[in-house]
Amino acid sequence: MIVCGVMTGTSIDGIDIAICEFSEKPSIDKGFKLLLFSEYKFPKEFRNRIQEVITSQNISLRDLSQLNFLYSKIIAKSIDNMLLSNSLDSNFIDLIGIHGQTLWHEPIAQSFCNEMISSTYQLGSGTALSAMLNTPVVYDFRAADMALGGEGAPLVPIFDFNFFRSETENVIALNIGGMSNITYLPSNCTTNDVLAFDCGPGNTLIDSAAQIYFHKDYDFNGEIARSGNLIPAFFTELQSIEFIRQKPPKSTGRELFNWKNISKFIKNYEARDIVRTLTEFTAYAISENIRIFAQDNAEIIVSGGGANNAFLIEVISKNLPKCNISFSSDYGIPTQAKEAIAFAYLAWLNVNGLPGNLPKATGAAKQVILGAFARCQ
Amino acid sequence: MIVCGVMTGTSIDGIDIAICEFSEKPSIDKGFKLLLFSEYKFPKEFRNRIQEVITSQNISLRDLSQLNFLYSKIIAKSIDNMLLSNSLDSNFIDLIGIHGQTLWHEPIAQSFCNEMISSTYQLGSGTALSAMLNTPVVYDFRAADMALGGEGAPLVPIFDFNFFRSETENVIALNIGGMSNITYLPSNCTTNDVLAFDCGPGNTLIDSAAQIYFHKDYDFNGEIARSGNLIPAFFTELQSIEFIRQKPPKSTGRELFNWKNISKFIKNYEARDIVRTLTEFTAYAISENIRIFAQDNAEIIVSGGGANNAFLIEVISKNLPKCNISFSSDYGIPTQAKEAIAFAYLAWLNVNGLPGNLPKATGAAKQVILGAFARCQ
Repeated sequence: MIVCGVMTGTSIDGIDIAICEFSEKPSIDKGFKLLLFSEYKFPKEFRNRIQEVITSQNISLRDLSQLNFLYSKIIAKSIDNMLLSNSLDSNFIDLIGIHGQTLWHEPIAQSFCNEMISSTYQLGSGTALSAMLNTPVVYDFRAADMALGGEGAPLVPIFDFNFFRSETENVIALNIGGMSNITYLPSNCTTNDVLAFDCGPGNTLIDSAAQIYFHKDYDFNGEIARSGNLIPAFFTELQSIEFIRQKPPKSTGRELFNWKNISKFIKNYEARDIVRTLTEFTAYAISENIRIFAQDNAEIIVSGGGANNAFLIEVISKNLPKCNISFSSDYGIPTQAKEAIAFAYLAWLNVNGLPGNLPKATGAAKQVILGAFARCQ
Repeated sequence: MIVCGVMTGTSIDGIDIAICEFSEKPSIDKGFKLLLFSEYKFPKEFRNRIQEVITSQNISLRDLSQLNFLYSKIIAKSIDNMLLSNSLDSNFIDLIGIHGQTLWHEPIAQSFCNEMISSTYQLGSGTALSAMLNTPVVYDFRAADMALGGEGAPLVPIFDFNFFRSETENVIALNIGGMSNITYLPSNCTTNDVLAFDCGPGNTLIDSAAQIYFHKDYDFNGEIARSGNLIPAFFTELQSIEFIRQKPPKSTGRELFNWKNISKFIKNYEARDIVRTLTEFTAYAISENIRIFAQDNAEIIVSGGGANNAFLIEVISKNLPKCNISFSSDYGIPTQAKEAIAFAYLAWLNVNGLPGNLPKATGAAKQVILGAFARCQ
């Protein structure tokens, strides 16, 4: 089965598309092959509109409805382009798994209209996408887990479990996207032993500072951070954010780690020192969570955009001297492709009637099939 | 197969739940049975919040996400109550078909972020509902048709075709909900002969006037209208609304027929005369569409809340002297239950891999399976 996985992260920087082949009981050793991976940019108009929506935390009903379909149209065009530029037929793909664009994620139930409600919201109509491409689509992966009391995240652990676990070593799959999260796979583990949770910020705060102070999309290779100095007072304020040392299961997002919340700690500091401190804080959030809640003697397999920040990786490595750090690309999975591949795998699980969540990771009452399945014929 | 259909209309007045039994190739004569039908009220807090959203045409991202899940929770509780009060087990239902709460419907593509986009938006997570009740759910019925250039409405025609067509008579299934729509089934028709479209307002304008001028939810039996006089100038203004005589396929909603748009024609008139004129206009919109685009010699089978407005039905009957008017309840389908039953049937079609739209009715490029399928185990 050829499955296309599509991921668009909270940074709205682009569309990651992975086309994979899965056969029966796929694992890293057999039955799985990454055929193609590409990154596409969102059209500027769309990106601006979504950024406005996220900034204002508000949307008109018309924009909601139209953006929901426009998102699907943009994804459909990107997949079409990818197939075309590889001289592949439009019916090459058997199935699409798409995460959608997260606009809200509220993992802890709060009183709302007299009911305790937790919820998540991803923009994008899977049903429309399926009709546009005449290909079955699985989408809305987080809702069922949340309806069962889970946090709807993280969902990649079942992929990590099936593709990265080892009989002899402790493995930690670390993904550094907008946020950072780990999947801890003790040696010779079963699904019941898997622990997975968000650590805190990934690239989001570093990127924000690079954009605000240096007009760069991100801190290339961590060079700005490397040239700056740690600001102890700022670092201490950041370390005190409760989420960092909060016990798992836990998940987070831009609702907590956004520039508005962080910048209140910033005084009249040097710009490069701010980037340095945010990088050290991001590394701290990751390594502190690994140290307290996982295992400081493990193989860490890094994926996500943060894998390209050499300085960030150095600090993590320094914080965890007993760990060995490698990259998902060492295992044939480009660091930027892992989440897209994971959502292809989650779609594959759905159509095979297999559950996709790990209750120990999400906190849900039980394992369930994730996602809704849309097909047109 | 026991299928539960759930409909909540644009008037947000309540939740219609029909529990039906379908066997192979269901029709009115065989293989279909309505087991239970109930109407539930939305909790006041929820209804008020949705009404605020519709009035302001704007929603915060948090409310969007939380209301989406809260809607599912309210539906789940209503279904649970219905089963409980009929001493039925929670696994009595095999499948749920749910329409969702429409917040936006834009059937004609408009330029949006440099793309031509038409779209529709229904609140309610089918995936969450499926997990809450541990029952498979089909939802998001309109998106695929719209992605293929259709108007995503009307969707009830395939139900009308299968359950109301006649070999010897022209049949018109007329539903008077918030809006009014007809399905025209010429005698001995095939799906290609079926014509179906929205006529214009149903109860929405009459209800608004009853609420504003008389503090009543609606004009009971049409008694206010019956006691008033037609205002010719107002009636002429209303008749001039282009949608009424626009050629099908066409669909409409509160985006066009809302109080703000209509009240601009209202001068210093008597309140009961306003209700009378809006009732005559509603009847005109229905009968004019039947006369021009369908057949003025037909059996009209009325369903929807408007079936209870005796005066409205009288005016329609007077406008179409060659038609015979009956009610869906004469065929074993309570007038208020038809749409909920139709969405149970559309869900049944989805899981049986059968298309649900009629391209001649919606304008879509082709017949497709409608809806997304969510199941948890």
